[in-house]
Amino acid sequence: AGRFRASEHQHVRYNPLRDDWVLVSAHRVKRPWQGQLEKPPPEDVPRWDPKNPLCPGATRANGEVNPKYEGTFVFPNDFPALHPDAPEPDDSDHPLFRAAPAQGVCKVMCFHPWSDLTLPLMSLPEIRAVIDAWAELATELGASYPWVQIFENKGAMMGCSNPHPHCQVWASSFLPNEARLEDRTQRQHLSEHGVPMLLEYAEQEARRKERLVVENADWLVVVPYWATWPYQTLLLPRRHVCRLQDLSDSEKDSLASIMQRLLIKYDNLFEVSFPYSMGWHGAPTGAFLEEDCRHWQLHAHYYPPLLRSATVRKFMVGYEMLAQAQRDLTPEQAAERLRSLPEVHYKKRAE
Amino acid sequence: AGRFRASEHQHVRYNPLRDDWVLVSAHRVKRPWQGQLEKPPPEDVPRWDPKNPLCPGATRANGEVNPKYEGTFVFPNDFPALHPDAPEPDDSDHPLFRAAPAQGVCKVMCFHPWSDLTLPLMSLPEIRAVIDAWAELATELGASYPWVQIFENKGAMMGCSNPHPHCQVWASSFLPNEARLEDRTQRQHLSEHGVPMLLEYAEQEARRKERLVVENADWLVVVPYWATWPYQTLLLPRRHVCRLQDLSDSEKDSLASIMQRLLIKYDNLFEVSFPYSMGWHGAPTGAFLEEDCRHWQLHAHYYPPLLRSATVRKFMVGYEMLAQAQRDLTPEQAAERLRSLPEVHYKKRAE
Ligand SMILES: O=P(O)(O)O[C@H]1O[C@H](CO)[C@@H](O)[C@H](O)[C@H]1O
Ligand SMILES: O=P(O)(O)O[C@H]1O[C@H](CO)[C@@H](O)[C@H](O)[C@H]1O
Repeated sequence: AGRFRASEHQHVRYNPLRDDWVLVSAHRVKRPWQGQLEKPPPEDVPRWDPKNPLCPGATRANGEVNPKYEGTFVFPNDFPALHPDAPEPDDSDHPLFRAAPAQGVCKVMCFHPWSDLTLPLMSLPEIRAVIDAWAELATELGASYPWVQIFENKGAMMGCSNPHPHCQVWASSFLPNEARLEDRTQRQHLSEHGVPMLLEYAEQEARRKERLVVENADWLVVVPYWATWPYQTLLLPRRHVCRLQDLSDSEKDSLASIMQRLLIKYDNLFEVSFPYSMGWHGAPTGAFLEEDCRHWQLHAHYYPPLLRSATVRKFMVGYEMLAQAQRDLTPEQAAERLRSLPEVHYKKRAE
Repeated sequence: AGRFRASEHQHVRYNPLRDDWVLVSAHRVKRPWQGQLEKPPPEDVPRWDPKNPLCPGATRANGEVNPKYEGTFVFPNDFPALHPDAPEPDDSDHPLFRAAPAQGVCKVMCFHPWSDLTLPLMSLPEIRAVIDAWAELATELGASYPWVQIFENKGAMMGCSNPHPHCQVWASSFLPNEARLEDRTQRQHLSEHGVPMLLEYAEQEARRKERLVVENADWLVVVPYWATWPYQTLLLPRRHVCRLQDLSDSEKDSLASIMQRLLIKYDNLFEVSFPYSMGWHGAPTGAFLEEDCRHWQLHAHYYPPLLRSATVRKFMVGYEMLAQAQRDLTPEQAAERLRSLPEVHYKKRAE
């Protein structure tokens, strides 16, 4: 059958963080696409729209008026999935019908007063302000809640219903699935190998280089060996850091820089404001603050849906939902493509 | 904080088949939606189009000409994710960089010669022919492959690139993630409770009734207690059946009937050809045919994306990808809504 080449021959790869596998069938990107096309994002978002509830001075759904904020702005989600004091379900009467209590809070955080900006178009001090606000929220909500999920849905394709640059923070009284999973796999790795999984992984990737997208003294971004989404990336510190709130001042500056570089590359890939969902994972908080969390390593996941162009996405559907995620190009091909892109935003290039 | 009501108060529910949880925040469906709208499916699909590679008599990508088939028609996928004889990757040099071999075959199966039909618009004998073809493929490919994934992506929203009614079958040399997971949880349930999990679950749901959508002497369809997609359903036999190929003749007839009733209700929900991904899970095959698989119970999952209308879907994005699936109405509300819908297709109703 000839010699194995990852870019030609299907194989499966193991994801040690989720303890599952991805099917890599890189030859599949050659097939023609006659399916659904996505609408590119609007190009004419007004900088300030008094009807947009995320804008400075606008009135929100609950009647409150936003301050004329000039930096970041945090407020409670007007339609929260989690309330702090919901009554608790009764005890289950059967092991196949188990409910459990869930309490929490949901917040929204605007990145900037202007609606026509996105993170890759913001300045380093502006991005740094976002990172500071993230760390503050992680500390504040993490004082009592075991899990504080910071996430950004960017673009209508990712269910984002408002073009104003913003993210969300959902803090919960329980450890969500992904947190439990990463807690288990990282704990096991530390106990078996004596080093935190993602610290070892970052060291390996820094040396192997073929999946690197951008790096600096404190951080690196890779298309992980086990990526499922075509241009998925993992943002990792080089030092062992458990939580966002543990970052030093200079690490926050270098984080702003590497985020800006990554996000400019993303926008440059298809010359479109690149849609994704991203979010931070760090050691659990609340009661876990007293526990040994050395197996954890802070990281951010970026999950972008686009595959071929600004209008052709990857569909994670039938086989993926019922059997296993499948990808149509290798992580190494994706990394190389991203690596080779300029670090100047296509909208800012001199004509 | 008052008395708990599932339809008002957020809580989490346990999915015993996947060993994970879903956040139920049913009050969330009240929030207004200003995000992306989906394009409804085309209404003017020609019955026969010589340019459509799935049609009888049409030429496919590889140059082959389809027969003038009159029932179902199975052929090899021209752009398969799995080949039967791919070379195998080298042994991994590090536990965080693990690849493994993957072999398999991918087939496409047309349900009917006409492009303007879908399963809910087909007659019972036509649906029965599809079920027979499924059972044959499951037997044929299952003779050597441990997993034969039969799945249908219906609608452009679910990544389906051809309106002609069809499904796919991907058989693999490995057990995919979902298969491994359901194998583990069902095995554990049988060993702890002495009865197959989904057999016990079907008995419970038949008695509790609040999540039932349709039932007959051999089958029932429920919105599972732990459903993540808004109108997700689980199709279950009442008898202990390990695999599709174990169904009796009369069980295949009653399956055609219950599928037709379910799919007509789905179409009637928003008066649109209802998009979904669906697929069959049964006991593994190949070498597993010689092993004890009594913990398995045959079932089909239906995962439809729509939430509010023909054009407003549920987005499984930021929180869902990074933390945990979240749903905006209770499974009981979804089941009641589906239950109350007529069993005559809206396109066939007398004016
Ligand atoms: O094989 P198709 O129908 O072209 O492709 C569709 O189903 C596959 C299996 O679920 C997915 O991997 C693809 O992303 C999707 O577009
Ligand atoms: O809260 P939003 O932005 O209105 O809603 C969006 O993000 C949520 C969290 O990922 C999802 O549950 C919703 O489906 C999505 O539309």
